[in-house]
Parts: sequence; structure tokens; C-alpha cells
Amino acid sequence: MSARILIVDDLAASVKVLAAKLTSEYYDVLTAHDGPTALEIVSREMPDLVLLDVMMPGMDGFEVCRRIKKSARTAHIPVVMVTALNDMRDRVNGLQAGADDFLTKPLNDTMLFARVRSLVRMKRTFDQWSQHQQTSRDLGFDVDPDMTDVHGRAAGVIVVDSSEIQSDNIRGVLERDGHNVTVLNSYIDAAQHIAGDLPDVVVVSMDFEGDEPLRLASRLRSQEPTRQVPILLIGDAEDESNLIKGLELGVNDCVVRPVDEQEIVARVRTQVRRKRYQEMLQSNFEQHLSMALTDGLTGLHNRRYLESHLDGIVKRAGDGGHGLSLMLIDLDHFKRVNDTYGHAAGDEVLRVVAKRLLRNVRGFDTAARFGGEEFIVAMPDTPIDIAFAVADRIRTKVAEEPIPLPDGSQLTVTMSAGVAELVEPGETAAELIERADKALYMAKHDGRDRVVRADPFVKKTSETAVE
Amino acid sequence: MSARILIVDDLAASVKVLAAKLTSEYYDVLTAHDGPTALEIVSREMPDLVLLDVMMPGMDGFEVCRRIKKSARTAHIPVVMVTALNDMRDRVNGLQAGADDFLTKPLNDTMLFARVRSLVRMKRTFDQWSQHQQTSRDLGFDVDPDMTDVHGRAAGVIVVDSSEIQSDNIRGVLERDGHNVTVLNSYIDAAQHIAGDLPDVVVVSMDFEGDEPLRLASRLRSQEPTRQVPILLIGDAEDESNLIKGLELGVNDCVVRPVDEQEIVARVRTQVRRKRYQEMLQSNFEQHLSMALTDGLTGLHNRRYLESHLDGIVKRAGDGGHGLSLMLIDLDHFKRVNDTYGHAAGDEVLRVVAKRLLRNVRGFDTAARFGGEEFIVAMPDTPIDIAFAVADRIRTKVAEEPIPLPDGSQLTVTMSAGVAELVEPGETAAELIERADKALYMAKHDGRDRVVRADPFVKKTSETAVE
Repeated sequence: MSARILIVDDLAASVKVLAAKLTSEYYDVLTAHDGPTALEIVSREMPDLVLLDVMMPGMDGFEVCRRIKKSARTAHIPVVMVTALNDMRDRVNGLQAGADDFLTKPLNDTMLFARVRSLVRMKRTFDQWSQHQQTSRDLGFDVDPDMTDVHGRAAGVIVVDSSEIQSDNIRGVLERDGHNVTVLNSYIDAAQHIAGDLPDVVVVSMDFEGDEPLRLASRLRSQEPTRQVPILLIGDAEDESNLIKGLELGVNDCVVRPVDEQEIVARVRTQVRRKRYQEMLQSNFEQHLSMALTDGLTGLHNRRYLESHLDGIVKRAGDGGHGLSLMLIDLDHFKRVNDTYGHAAGDEVLRVVAKRLLRNVRGFDTAARFGGEEFIVAMPDTPIDIAFAVADRIRTKVAEEPIPLPDGSQLTVTMSAGVAELVEPGETAAELIERADKALYMAKHDGRDRVVRADPFVKKTSETAVE
Repeated sequence: MSARILIVDDLAASVKVLAAKLTSEYYDVLTAHDGPTALEIVSREMPDLVLLDVMMPGMDGFEVCRRIKKSARTAHIPVVMVTALNDMRDRVNGLQAGADDFLTKPLNDTMLFARVRSLVRMKRTFDQWSQHQQTSRDLGFDVDPDMTDVHGRAAGVIVVDSSEIQSDNIRGVLERDGHNVTVLNSYIDAAQHIAGDLPDVVVVSMDFEGDEPLRLASRLRSQEPTRQVPILLIGDAEDESNLIKGLELGVNDCVVRPVDEQEIVARVRTQVRRKRYQEMLQSNFEQHLSMALTDGLTGLHNRRYLESHLDGIVKRAGDGGHGLSLMLIDLDHFKRVNDTYGHAAGDEVLRVVAKRLLRNVRGFDTAARFGGEEFIVAMPDTPIDIAFAVADRIRTKVAEEPIPLPDGSQLTVTMSAGVAELVEPGETAAELIERADKALYMAKHDGRDRVVRADPFVKKTSETAVE
């Protein structure tokens, strides 16, 4: 997949060589010779990847990386640090500055392209999530990702390694960094085990023979539950072609033996951070979606949800012959509560009533806030006597216990309700609501704080039409 | 990227050969020897790709393909038809049955793997969208994609070809299929032109020298506005390595010259269908998200939107010193409307009042339904005299013209309003609402159908605290 790549290096010659390599592979190349220019280009052009030299006069690569990763707008752009020497301290500093990967000069072309492809692929997945985030923002959601959950916290790590000595070593290192580590010493059933106990990161160690490690990586990537789990591959320097194959299969990162303790710690942290960031974007998105069907004040379903589901619920009950009862609840004199005690008090009353209501209906009943101070509960498989009893219990629970208000005072409210039963399979949701509404009106009319049963449904036959 | 691939062929030997090839590339392989088994596996295992033999006894490949594409659950799984002969009729039949691509036996391995990689990549993008769709469904949205827009309709196509004869030929073919075709005879500025006038499909013709066509494809893929535009590459059989490079760069499909008229028509249709399907998923998703911040009945912003934005609006107005007025509107005796004329009438009244309100405020005012029959309008940069005049105009518009009800009758309603002006920069949104609410209460108290100005804000100084 093509991509835009920003090369940052103070040495013009280095930039030229790298740019030529990437251009020959049809990448779109941008260049910068110092940190401030790089940051400016990142912010303006939003490239898919940054190849960043560590040693630059003025602002060094670590600082550039830190700033890219600090901004919520650019944090998802992968940064690869390019070091002149295989300096382990530089690597770890870079990973701690938030770099996604490391390459050592002179660059090995095959490895360079394999890493670039892998990071660009990852970026594309994130792009879709950031696009959603932008959509949410444009629509008016308050999108302010809380990054505290992304950092820190112990992660669950599964290490798969046929050598017990090696795996114990890795386990020790990762446990010292606070992770919960499980070791599997066989590749057999490893995929199944991992799917059954989804970790935050899988570390797969290549052994000296056989293609089991790559098969495992491939299986984790191709099966649904493990598709998103970050995989870190460990191999020998002579294993390079297999490491590259691994990156092509969708492995997220790889480390060459001898494994440096700080490096593997930093790389595992990078994977955990990336996974949690993605999970956070996903959960924000689900939360925003669910708001569309939830009443913000009470947490009950909202009218929109009810309107798109009640027809189906009523129809299923009618077709199945299991019956259904519907309860329509309205708080008594609620307007007075708002006018006398203010909106904050009114809101609290609605919240408390909703809670008492929820506590008295079953999980498969559908409870929704229908309007201002009106609630509806649809109760499948429930005869009217039961529905009446439930409604009356809710009425008692509301009337009996005063509601504590935000200002410390208390308020007693009452409610009226109408209950109607679906008997004729042909009755629609709207007709059922109408009957419950009439019963509710009677309850109000008869003095409030009571439940009234609706008259049975009368089918509009041709005779009725004639009269 | 690894993936699960289902191979369907009645010849056990063919399945074996293909399975061995794919397994050696670490793909996860499933197999079936007849149509019904294939459909059963597709439905149960949801593979990433189906390689489907055309000629099978019983249910043939076309029928299997049609059924996979007909089900909303499996329609996004790419299907590649494998034909024994280079039979053009089979290709076209297959593409018409909804196949995503075609390969001819004996399979050329390089081309096979390039196509498979490209289709798997496309599938992954769709996976994310289908996952969103599933999330929506789980949350309770009514997800019933309307596929009519996905099929049919003329598409915008841009053809880039340095040869006028060739491009005129392609233009003719595509215009006869009902598309709007634009021809560009130069690759220079083509990317810019395409980005400025986004088509549904870009057809890029490779010429005999230079890498301009692939550079163009790469640029379209790496730049934001054109990233999702389907690209169809046309090349000579000897160009195979370039066609494969194109697929790697993110081109969606390629055709080998001589271009068969029906084949290019079918392939363009396939790309258009895929693009529209993706757009449909995206627009459903945006619609669902926007519901979370919109009042379903009136289309105004809802209380949730107001609560997450009003603080910011008030703070910006205070900090900027431009002032702001807030209008709180409440319909008079609305409860009676519901009780006397029914909920449908009440809803219609709210809708009509919201419309009259919207018509009398400016685009940068924020109008929201605050509760049952209450509305709020925040008017930045507006002194209270103007806000009062606007509120009074809305009041007149509501009271003057009777509201037509669903049953054909008419109803006249009135409203009361309180307006408050932000003067002290320290005042919060809640305090501002409270003052408007008090003014509204006065309007009600003084006989309704009127607008009242709120008392100015008095800062709680230490003196006040002392008294």
C-alpha cells in the first residue's frame, strides 16, 4: 500500500539516499532537515509515517518524537527512529519517547521496507478510527480522549517459546515491569489458548527448526477473536527472512536476539499503549452510538429506541400468542416540582423514579422514558393481572419513600399508571399505547396515585364501520 | 496479512494443489467440494476470501456466488471465480453474479497471491465497517441497509490514458453503460484534477514507457481526498509485473488488454457497487451518531448537546467580551394539549413550534429542545434588547397562526419566554439559565403569552457572603 513518508535528517545526503529508495518503491516522500520544520510538516501534511534521525543539532529526534506523540492529532502517526549506531540506550530512549520502531544505519533495505509496510498497515487501521473520532467531533461530541488509561497499568502477556530457559528469562523481565505473564512452552493449541484468554500482547519466540511460530502468528491474525492482539516476534539475526515474513503476516513488531532487557520492556509497552489507545477509540465510539438510544437523564431507553422496537415487540408477542402487557406511567403534578423546587430537583426526581421502576421490572422487559415525566414498560409474556400488580408495586415504592433532593431536603411524589394487555394479535403498538393512555387518564381523573386497567381492545370490524 | 481462505472445487486434486500453495504462504485454508457445503462453511466460518470454481455438478459457482452476495451477513466477503478456460462469457457471468474477481486456470502464482493480498486488504477495511454495523445492531439500532442505492445509478468515471484513441474507446463503452465519463490524456496534474472532482472510479491506463501510471496510482492512494477512490488499472499482458506492483500499491482491480467491452463494464460496476456499499455503511454510522445529539421529534439539538456545549459557548462569550443572550421558551398549558387532543397532536405542536423558532434565529445561534415543551436558544454576540425582540417575534409567530393537526383540525397555542443577558464574564451557564428561568416564571405568573427580561446578574462577592 502506498503512503506518504516524512524523512527527517540533518544530513542532506542521508535524506537523498533514503528518499530515492522510498520513491523507487512508489512512496510519496516529504523531507525535513531539522526538528522544527519536521513538526511543522507533520502537523500540516499528516504523513503516514515519520523516519526520524536521532542526532540532529538543535531539537534532537527524541524531542521531535515526544512532541508528535504528545499531540492528540498526531499521536497515531508511526515514528521510526533511525540511529547511526546500534546504541541500545538510544533505542530505549526512543521507545520511551513514544517511537514505534527503530532502525539502524546503514539501513537494510528488505527490513526497512518490511517495517514500513507493517507500520503503514497499522496506521491505516488507526486512520479509520481517527476518522470516526473526527466525525464525532464534527457532529458536536465532546471528544477529549482520556489518555491516562492508555499509559501505565499492568498488561496481560502470553509468551510462547519452546525453550523453558528462554521463556523463563522473558517472563522474569516482563514481570519485573509489572505485567502478568503466562508462558506456553508448546505451539500446539497455543492459538486456542490465546483466543480463550485474550492477553494484551503475545510474544512469540522463533525456535531453530520448523515453521510453528509463523503458523501460530498467521493463525492468530486470521481468526476473529485474536485478530487485533499485538504480536511481538523474537528471532535470531540469521532468522531475518522469517522475521520479515512475520511482519508481512501481520506481526506488529520483532526483536533480534540476544534480547536486551530494556528493549523488550520498551517494545512491549509500545504495543500495550497502541492496543489500549485503539480500544479507547472504540469504546468512545460505542458510547457515543449508545447515547442515541439512551435517555441521558435516567439511563433508560429513550423514545427513539422505543419507537423503533415497540412495533416488533408487540408483533412478536401477538404472533407468538404469549401475550404482552404495557404500562404507561406519569408522575403526578410534576410541573409543580419543577416550578417550585427548580429543574435540578425535577431531574433528580426523574432519576430516582427511573431507578425504582427499573428495580421492579425484569431484564427482558423494555423500560423507556417516553417523554418529560412519562415512562413506558413493555412486558412480554405477562397477563394484565401481573402487570397491574407490578405497576402498583412501583407506585407504592414511589409514593412511600421520599426522594432526597440535591439541596439536602426531601420530596414525596406520586405517580399514576395505566396498564393495557395485548389480546387480539392484530392490535398495533400505537393502539395499545392509546388504550394504556386512556387508562392513565382515568387514573388521573380519579384522583391520581393509582393504577387503572385499560378496557379490552375492540377490533374495528366491518359492522363497526357500517354503523 | 494472513487470512482464512475457502477453496471450493469439485476436483479434489485442484483443491489440494491450491491449498498447498496457499498454506505455504501461511494462509489458513478451508476447503469444500460442492456448492451447498461451501455456503454452509461461508456462513459458519466467515472466511476472508472465497476461491470458487465455476464448473461444479449440482449448484455451480455462479449460484454459490449469487447466494453469498445476496446475504447481508456475507455480501462483503470477496469471491474470486476460478475458470478452467479463459472464457469471456464466464467472466462476465461471474462478475454479474457479484464476483469480485476472476482468475484463470492454470493459476499464475504471482498474480494469484497479488490478487489475494489486495482482496484481503479490502476485506479488512470492510470488516471494520461491518463490525460497526454489528455494534449498532447490538445497541438496538434498526440496521437494515437499503441496498437499492448500491446497485444501479450512473457513476462518475475518470479515465486517464495518454492515447486518445484508446481513451475514446473506453469512454464510449462506459458511456453506453450509463456512466458520466471524463477523459484525461495526461498524467500531469491528473491526481490534482481527480482530487478536485472526486469520481466513483478512476481507470488508469498503463502506457508503454515510464512509470507515470503507477506514480499516479500511488499518489491517489497516499493522499487524503482520493484514498478511498477505486482504481482500475489497464495494462498489457507483458506488463504483468507492473500490474502486480499496482495491486501492491493499492489499486483495486486490473484488466489486461485487449480490453473486452463486457468485462470492463462489469469490473467498473463491481467497483462502483463496492464503493457505494462502503459509503452507505459510513453514512448509516454517521446518522446513528448524530441521533445521539439530536432531538428525534423536532430535529433540534437535544439537551445532551446543549449540556456539553453551553458551558463552552458561555465561556467564549464571556472571555471574548462580545456578550451573549439566552432565551428560555415554554409552551403555555401544553399538558392540556396532550390530555385533550392526544399525544400525536402534542407532538405535532412541538414540531411546528420548533420550525417557527428555527426560522427566526440565526445559523450561529444554538437552538435546542431542553425538555418536554421547553426550548433554549443561546445567541452569541447579542444584546438583550435584540434577544427580547427575537423572542417576541417567535412568540407572535406561534400565537398568530393556528397549528394544523394530523386529524385536519387546527389548534392555537401560546408560549412564554424569559431572556437573560450575560454581562459579568464570571457567570456560568447554569446561573444564566437560572436567571432566564426566573424571568420565564414571571412571564407565566403575569398571564402567559409574553416575554420577560431577566434581572441582571449580581456577583456573589465576599460582602454578600458576610451579610
